[in-house]
Amino acid sequence: MAVDYKAPIKDIVFGYEVIDSYNILNKISLFKDFSENIVITTMEECAKFAEGVLAPINSIGDQIGAVINDGVVTMPAGYKEAYNKFKEAGWASISLPQEIGGGGMPIALSGGTLEILSSANLAFGLSAGAISAINFHGSDEQKSKFLPKLVSGEWTGTMNLSEPQAGSDLGTIKTKAELAENGSYKITGTKVWITFGDHDMTENIIHLVLAKLPGSPEGTKGISMFIVPKILINDDGTLGDKNNVQCLSIEEKLGIHASPTCVMEYDGAIGYLVGEENRGLHYMFTMMNEARIWVGGQGLASASAAVQGAAQYARDRVQGRPVGMSKEDAKNASIIEHADVRRMLLTIKSYVDAMRYLMFDNQLMLDLEYFGEDEVTKSLGEERCAILTPITKAWLSDLGVELSSLAIQVYGGMGYVEETGIAQYLRDARIAPIYEGTNGIQALDLMFRKLPLDNGQAMQRLLGEVTNQIELMKNGSDLMVSLAKELEIHVSKLSEVTMWLATKMLDGQLVDASAAATPYLKMFGQVLGGYYMGKAAVLAEKKLKDGDNEFYSDKLTICKFYIQQLLPIASGYASAITAGKEDLFNIKAENF
Amino acid sequence: MAVDYKAPIKDIVFGYEVIDSYNILNKISLFKDFSENIVITTMEECAKFAEGVLAPINSIGDQIGAVINDGVVTMPAGYKEAYNKFKEAGWASISLPQEIGGGGMPIALSGGTLEILSSANLAFGLSAGAISAINFHGSDEQKSKFLPKLVSGEWTGTMNLSEPQAGSDLGTIKTKAELAENGSYKITGTKVWITFGDHDMTENIIHLVLAKLPGSPEGTKGISMFIVPKILINDDGTLGDKNNVQCLSIEEKLGIHASPTCVMEYDGAIGYLVGEENRGLHYMFTMMNEARIWVGGQGLASASAAVQGAAQYARDRVQGRPVGMSKEDAKNASIIEHADVRRMLLTIKSYVDAMRYLMFDNQLMLDLEYFGEDEVTKSLGEERCAILTPITKAWLSDLGVELSSLAIQVYGGMGYVEETGIAQYLRDARIAPIYEGTNGIQALDLMFRKLPLDNGQAMQRLLGEVTNQIELMKNGSDLMVSLAKELEIHVSKLSEVTMWLATKMLDGQLVDASAAATPYLKMFGQVLGGYYMGKAAVLAEKKLKDGDNEFYSDKLTICKFYIQQLLPIASGYASAITAGKEDLFNIKAENF
Repeated sequence: MAVDYKAPIKDIVFGYEVIDSYNILNKISLFKDFSENIVITTMEECAKFAEGVLAPINSIGDQIGAVINDGVVTMPAGYKEAYNKFKEAGWASISLPQEIGGGGMPIALSGGTLEILSSANLAFGLSAGAISAINFHGSDEQKSKFLPKLVSGEWTGTMNLSEPQAGSDLGTIKTKAELAENGSYKITGTKVWITFGDHDMTENIIHLVLAKLPGSPEGTKGISMFIVPKILINDDGTLGDKNNVQCLSIEEKLGIHASPTCVMEYDGAIGYLVGEENRGLHYMFTMMNEARIWVGGQGLASASAAVQGAAQYARDRVQGRPVGMSKEDAKNASIIEHADVRRMLLTIKSYVDAMRYLMFDNQLMLDLEYFGEDEVTKSLGEERCAILTPITKAWLSDLGVELSSLAIQVYGGMGYVEETGIAQYLRDARIAPIYEGTNGIQALDLMFRKLPLDNGQAMQRLLGEVTNQIELMKNGSDLMVSLAKELEIHVSKLSEVTMWLATKMLDGQLVDASAAATPYLKMFGQVLGGYYMGKAAVLAEKKLKDGDNEFYSDKLTICKFYIQQLLPIASGYASAITAGKEDLFNIKAENF
Repeated sequence: MAVDYKAPIKDIVFGYEVIDSYNILNKISLFKDFSENIVITTMEECAKFAEGVLAPINSIGDQIGAVINDGVVTMPAGYKEAYNKFKEAGWASISLPQEIGGGGMPIALSGGTLEILSSANLAFGLSAGAISAINFHGSDEQKSKFLPKLVSGEWTGTMNLSEPQAGSDLGTIKTKAELAENGSYKITGTKVWITFGDHDMTENIIHLVLAKLPGSPEGTKGISMFIVPKILINDDGTLGDKNNVQCLSIEEKLGIHASPTCVMEYDGAIGYLVGEENRGLHYMFTMMNEARIWVGGQGLASASAAVQGAAQYARDRVQGRPVGMSKEDAKNASIIEHADVRRMLLTIKSYVDAMRYLMFDNQLMLDLEYFGEDEVTKSLGEERCAILTPITKAWLSDLGVELSSLAIQVYGGMGYVEETGIAQYLRDARIAPIYEGTNGIQALDLMFRKLPLDNGQAMQRLLGEVTNQIELMKNGSDLMVSLAKELEIHVSKLSEVTMWLATKMLDGQLVDASAAATPYLKMFGQVLGGYYMGKAAVLAEKKLKDGDNEFYSDKLTICKFYIQQLLPIASGYASAITAGKEDLFNIKAENF
């Protein structure tokens, strides 16, 4: 009875064209052969795996969940087998460099596979962060020791940042590292919120752990990064003794029950320093963008899967007499004939498209940053990715919750019954606004790190690109002109509040800016969605001249609906942005 | 670790003054002595019961839930004892008429107790609908046989409307009623979504069942209402044989686990016709307003309780360095010193106040409708209640979900852990937009039944009252003038789209109107919230001259925040309202 997920391959393929990925990536020698064919083949293969292997265990993973006994975490039935297939197919490493055994594909391509895999099973989300960290910052010895089996998926990796007293603020971590024999370290401390900190799908788990060396500087500047394997590795590469690391407990969570969230105890565990001392947080940050986009993708994936379930239910459920329909016709009318049900479905579908374009483009910019061959390309990628990432993470993950909840509404009473499977999407999606930096932190990142980039010029360049898109549309059909005008209203308002914020920050009124951070990010996301919908509308209109008219005319409707009916909320945030800190701090803490 | 709920008595008492309840109710002879003292005493007593008895079993009710064995539903530990205290205190019947054993208080007063009881334990929600139905429409014999024990709480009542094929559309019910001996009937059929259809807290349960008599008209005009006791009652009033009614199963739900949602099987069960044949749906509708306001109240209650937990967590959790604070001060700074956390808390608090004023006023209008002694009063109550009810039901219940989710966000990672208790509010609140008529149905009700009332004059009178409030504020302080101006922008926009809709409906463009229903209701709710906040602001400013300045200056801040920072979203719905049906129906059902 759970949602019968079918990967929206055509929508995904269209997304890669909307963001002009082929032209842009083909200029990079690594990706000179990247093509629509590759996208189609990859998504079709990924769909087979996701629909055939991951989706069928999604409900059972939710109902049974990961369990812990005597410090050993056991995955629900079917997960180990699914993981083996995942590993064999190489889905974990599709966008990792070929020289370390990865697929060598652009990061942008992993956007589509991420959506499909996460739509099928959100809990099945193993981060590739540890691989990147070792690859970027580890020694040659560490790379040859750990990377091959991590990349092949024979082992999995974790990121150990938080501690009970140190969540969003890592400056206060207490885990200690002390020099031991052979240049290794002894790691002691408790880490929390460790995703897949323990499980039984692989023989070994490689933990990346942030810890403090004796005498290191206070705060974030005194944090080092260590590799701590669950099972120690002998010199000949075989598995040796168990390390002194243990999963103490797993959290009982609202959702993603098949993703064990572990409390990890390091009790003099042997660890190996990555890179230089006290540079651990910096190393973590280098892979933050990828991880944050990935979490935004979970929001997209939840909504994308949920709307499929809702649409199917709406087509099947015969009920009521739609306004304007004769009694006779209404006898077999399913609820999808009600305007209000269509509004719910179209709202989700429109947002899903906008979310997808933003995520793909963000990853494309990461490709430019990482693999661009000239300074102009690299710096465009870097600045654009810097701005887009907090928006992708927060706007998409908030929408994932809102839209999964809307999908429940389409089901009526059946949506509230767990058996239907639709409620799981809301419960699973609710994690995404929280982890990898809460959405409040994303908003502060956008305000205080991204808005001031290159003295505000980076932001101006992005807004300039949106304006160029508007000008382009103004030279198009009547529909494009009318969409351009609507978009222009909200982009102008966004530029206006951006200037207001820049002025405030230059005046040192930082608290006023911090008070504006979340509504500013929401407004920015809503407007960027309109920008991408404008691009999609232009493309769909062009394509309409070729065959397959229905697909492209539907896309045009979706773009129009977004720009005319969803986008206008954007300007409603403006007055909250420019309201300043006053009201927020007028009330004493104890009076809240 | 669950939320330590304290009833917000002062806020509730203030609410009754905002809606001018004393002046209005004292004009009705039944309520001539209704006073702030009565409100305070009632809320204090209710708070004691809710905090001391209901809140402590809220978590266990969620974790254990109601269970069924061999057709018998057993409540979680503590619920039967809690129910006995609830019954003894008379909380179920506080607003029922004195002549049938109720408390004789205005319905408006039950708004405050509903908020408090539901905040403490949302699942503990037993509807009084069956009592009203029998009282309004039953025979004298039925009243004397069933009412005393229902009103005293010795028995509970249920409403049996839906069937598997008949949810939102009751015209298609199949349950049959056939005349049997002594003028009784035999009822046969399956009913679903029956809240507290079975439980072990009372000896008997009185079901009100909709069924069709042989040869009755098709559709909603052929439905009759029957009283079907779980245990038959002997002529001497003692309990007799078990009736042929059985709970087949209970639903596994996302939330309100302690509220058994039953599938009920009637297999030739003995039932008694209420009132006339084929008038059943009409009888149901007469008590629909109360029930729908009550569900809106559950949205309010969820948000009201959730923000308490979030505020307490935010005061306790020390983390991070708030923007603009010195490193030294930040060492002991809890997250409530972060502007963004304050924005989340103030957003919830502001909405909760607006929701409360709307609900209280809606109930006050119901008091005028039921108990008003002149035609002018009664018809004002009736028309105002007609318009406000769908808004109270839908706007409050949607906000209940959104704001409970926002409360989770304040907790960060801890919010996602069930142990904290905050996730339960989201899970519990999610039912309210669905039951007692989905929010989509509320929106259609507002559009097609309420907007055309008295040829649109009823709506104009309500909007006129909002305009009067604006004029009043324009003669006030600078702050009042500025709030009035903001409010005016959105009321004008609302009037504009209302006119557009009225014109469409006069032109017979009903599908365009139906397409606009949900955004229209959302916009209406947001603007009405602003109207009540305007009233509250005027009152708070006046009160500021007396003592207790902090409470009233906080209220003023809350009103200002709502009108300046939350209300502006309202006009963002306008273009969706006037967009018409086109986009929604441009896409084929199979393409969604």
